[in-house]
Amino acid sequence: MSADEFDVIRDLFAPLATLTAARDLKDDVAVLEDSGALVVTTDAVVEGVHFLSLDPIAAVAMKAVRVNVSDIIAKGARPRAALLTLIWPETRDAADIALFADAVRGEFEYFGISMLGGDTTSTPGPLTISITLFGEPLGARTPARADAQVGDDVWLAGGEIGSAWLGLQLRSGAMKLDELRRGRDEAASRAESEAIAPQMPDYLSLPGEPFDAEAGWLMSAYLAPLLRTDLAEIIAQFARASMDVSDGLVADATKLAAASDVALRIEANAIPFAAPAARWVQTGGDFRKLITGGDDYAVLFTAAPDQRAALGQIEQDRRFGLARIGVVEVGEGVSVIDRAGVPVPLDIGGYAHRLGR
Amino acid sequence: MSADEFDVIRDLFAPLATLTAARDLKDDVAVLEDSGALVVTTDAVVEGVHFLSLDPIAAVAMKAVRVNVSDIIAKGARPRAALLTLIWPETRDAADIALFADAVRGEFEYFGISMLGGDTTSTPGPLTISITLFGEPLGARTPARADAQVGDDVWLAGGEIGSAWLGLQLRSGAMKLDELRRGRDEAASRAESEAIAPQMPDYLSLPGEPFDAEAGWLMSAYLAPLLRTDLAEIIAQFARASMDVSDGLVADATKLAAASDVALRIEANAIPFAAPAARWVQTGGDFRKLITGGDDYAVLFTAAPDQRAALGQIEQDRRFGLARIGVVEVGEGVSVIDRAGVPVPLDIGGYAHRLGR
Repeated sequence: MSADEFDVIRDLFAPLATLTAARDLKDDVAVLEDSGALVVTTDAVVEGVHFLSLDPIAAVAMKAVRVNVSDIIAKGARPRAALLTLIWPETRDAADIALFADAVRGEFEYFGISMLGGDTTSTPGPLTISITLFGEPLGARTPARADAQVGDDVWLAGGEIGSAWLGLQLRSGAMKLDELRRGRDEAASRAESEAIAPQMPDYLSLPGEPFDAEAGWLMSAYLAPLLRTDLAEIIAQFARASMDVSDGLVADATKLAAASDVALRIEANAIPFAAPAARWVQTGGDFRKLITGGDDYAVLFTAAPDQRAALGQIEQDRRFGLARIGVVEVGEGVSVIDRAGVPVPLDIGGYAHRLGR
Repeated sequence: MSADEFDVIRDLFAPLATLTAARDLKDDVAVLEDSGALVVTTDAVVEGVHFLSLDPIAAVAMKAVRVNVSDIIAKGARPRAALLTLIWPETRDAADIALFADAVRGEFEYFGISMLGGDTTSTPGPLTISITLFGEPLGARTPARADAQVGDDVWLAGGEIGSAWLGLQLRSGAMKLDELRRGRDEAASRAESEAIAPQMPDYLSLPGEPFDAEAGWLMSAYLAPLLRTDLAEIIAQFARASMDVSDGLVADATKLAAASDVALRIEANAIPFAAPAARWVQTGGDFRKLITGGDDYAVLFTAAPDQRAALGQIEQDRRFGLARIGVVEVGEGVSVIDRAGVPVPLDIGGYAHRLGR
């Protein structure tokens, strides 16, 4: 980039470079002097693939950060430092870069992340953001996907399943508000909307769409998932195997089962759906869509059965959104069992990222 | 991505995951147990910005790796491990992913890099590759851009200036072979071509263009710069300030001068041009284009004058391409001085990356 533009970007991000390793973003490398144990992940988001072109730039920044934070939390670690690569479209207003940086600043401050460095370039294509995030493990070991053992309980933490999927349907126009409103008590829903409204980020408005606090909440879950960093301590203390749920509960549970060479048996009835998602199912929605799609950014983990009492205590604290949803068995794959004990057919598939033609 | 495609990519890259920290690429994070001092950099390359759509996929992979390796070498460190994010166009043949991975494997083996992890996604836009590279510092300190001191000598290492710029002109069609051939002795050039030909990578053919070994060599310098990892030891031992030259010698020297709050005085006569570049200048080419454009991936560094004798010894070994090109003075900016001692006007500008509209 030109010297002027580099200075602008550096000035925007320099306040986030709180570690000396970042060299005030004035060098070509960051220098970690004696870093000890580190957990590191990298995830990119691409306009038209992971977010919509109409999504506000602040929400895009939040999503780019949080998909990475989610991986670090799910491994029982605390986010510490990040490299950020911003690939900005030639056709997008350069003034929005300041809005983007503002949102990143808010995220980094909230999650305790220092900016370590990065890269900035233009592109003839879509807005693309790649982040490499470093975390500090809170436990002696970092749980792998491959660490589940037969007999373990299967747990979900930190996310109400279905919100992000419904939010995307609303956001993309695939679902109309009327479908979501089915079965709502008019007075109760008005009270709920009024209660939620003050928490709504101001970027949650759809051009030409009637606004609704519950719908805003769901779209918010899609745009920028809510994450609890304090889940990391629970994972570090209790998890045998763990991973975050980013491609749908069933798809990610299948990956964990394959890595651990076990089967996961999940009770449909035990899955903690978000209230609007549960109501949507009760009024005719197919709950399988909620568990086979949706980037919920919950944490899926397994724990030894002798941890059940301690985790049950934590489950009482609703903030953590903890729920025991199944068991690890001999075998392979994931089965979801209904109230009658019958496996639910799941051949409707998860979200499959396709590469090339 | 779909499970099948993920497996394909993981299988392609898994042999490169030589560190246990990589967890065989089967997890969401890499875990560095006790990493000691680390130097880390990240650079992305974008089709249509950093490489041309017609460039062979193997050369694109090499460039993506080497722009990062160049940063690590320039800081006196040895490349060790990388995260690779591959953002693959929906319209590009998925079969080329295997060719890409083959080239990355060759690079990682050559430079001693372990694959740590990464991300893979599709894009409606251009091929984009982002790499985060970790290096192990060879010296007690890692030279910064900001470390130059008045009185230091200015050195270049590891690159003959001008090759990459001429290669890009040929590759993009902005310069015809005839212009490059001006002033060549026919018999000598044939002998040179025959000597160089066996070293030519087989991807260096231009559709419909008459091929020429020297031109191939120059295009190779543009497509995938030659890097010497053993330069890192020289930098670690002797450099006060250092950085790699990736946006043209003058532009990068200007950045170093600004970071160190000094002026750099460079003798035009001392700049080590590649032989074809020197001949092009002698036959009418403007040498200022060679020093204000071109991603030469040389190393620019300063060293205390009492190191001049030791570096002069190393300069005798032509492999390192070492040359003392100037001095650090009080002031700001960069001046390039001709044989008569007169500053050369440099207002033709370097390569400016532009962000947004």
